[in-house]
Amino acid sequence: MNSTDDATLMETCITGQTLVEGNFLTFRRDQVRLPDGASASRDYVVHPGAVVIVPLLGERRVLLERQYRYPVGRVMTEFPAGKLDPGEDPLACAQRELREETGYTAAQWAHAGAMHLAIAYSTEIIHIFFARHLRPGNPARDKDEFLETHVMDVGDFFAACRDGRITDAKTLTCALWLQNVCSGSWEVAFTK
Amino acid sequence: MNSTDDATLMETCITGQTLVEGNFLTFRRDQVRLPDGASASRDYVVHPGAVVIVPLLGERRVLLERQYRYPVGRVMTEFPAGKLDPGEDPLACAQRELREETGYTAAQWAHAGAMHLAIAYSTEIIHIFFARHLRPGNPARDKDEFLETHVMDVGDFFAACRDGRITDAKTLTCALWLQNVCSGSWEVAFTK
Repeated sequence: MNSTDDATLMETCITGQTLVEGNFLTFRRDQVRLPDGASASRDYVVHPGAVVIVPLLGERRVLLERQYRYPVGRVMTEFPAGKLDPGEDPLACAQRELREETGYTAAQWAHAGAMHLAIAYSTEIIHIFFARHLRPGNPARDKDEFLETHVMDVGDFFAACRDGRITDAKTLTCALWLQNVCSGSWEVAFTK
Repeated sequence: MNSTDDATLMETCITGQTLVEGNFLTFRRDQVRLPDGASASRDYVVHPGAVVIVPLLGERRVLLERQYRYPVGRVMTEFPAGKLDPGEDPLACAQRELREETGYTAAQWAHAGAMHLAIAYSTEIIHIFFARHLRPGNPARDKDEFLETHVMDVGDFFAACRDGRITDAKTLTCALWLQNVCSGSWEVAFTK
């Protein structure tokens, strides 16, 4: 992708400060050196990283969640996801989050890819996993976590991505993966 | 999508405060009432909303940008995008951003859909547009905006979405739209 030397685009940190140390997120402001030598200010959220899971229920259905998302003020339909604990391996996090949020465990897992969620103002990376051969169980949700599981037929899921019933960017990115894995265009390698 | 009454999921604001009034973003903390009557704290970014544009260069190529994104510390390949000015119509914003960032103007525009970018901690919605019949011109970038345009063959673009050269979530969401519009599965209505 390096059509020119990236030095003509890069910014480097001059100094920085933490503006807010939140419960889950940290808000920072850094002064940066621009490629032309001038300086500018960059405000951003420091995020520990996360995972999202595409849980396959047989060949034709997927497991999603419905959850009220306060910043956007509505109940969102989305794939299960969650933040990495400090030092946690992304696959272990995916297995933990699926079990805690939905109760399901999966016999087989595949790492697909990764996305950077909000590159203008967040460090967040989300690792994408597929899970299959699911077995139901009891969820263990955080006490302030209210959500319900929601099973969709794959065809209805893609229709929802198109017609605005699903607008969560991480879930729409997973839809790109799901569509290409379902069609055989993109391969993912499941564990044994 | 309402498989149960959403009241079992909803959170309502009790009180709130602005923690940081940034240059472009505001960082807030609200106390919310949970569905079970308990309270919790929600930290989030207030964002004015944005647009992203999928610029089609003929039948087989797309116009992207390469830009250093400080929060993720790397040069990202992404579709042109930008924030709404106060009261700005999303289509007008898309036309302005494409022209300012890349110099291109487009004879035909189509609104596709929308995405919510980071639903756990941002109010941001991004409106998705397609642009075609492009004509090159001179960009008018902000003085602290360093980017270069980058033309990709559509096949190479999708390969880059798969192999990790493209990881920007808004661009990957646009890839879902582009793939389905190219295949004829999803239709978008271009202006005249």
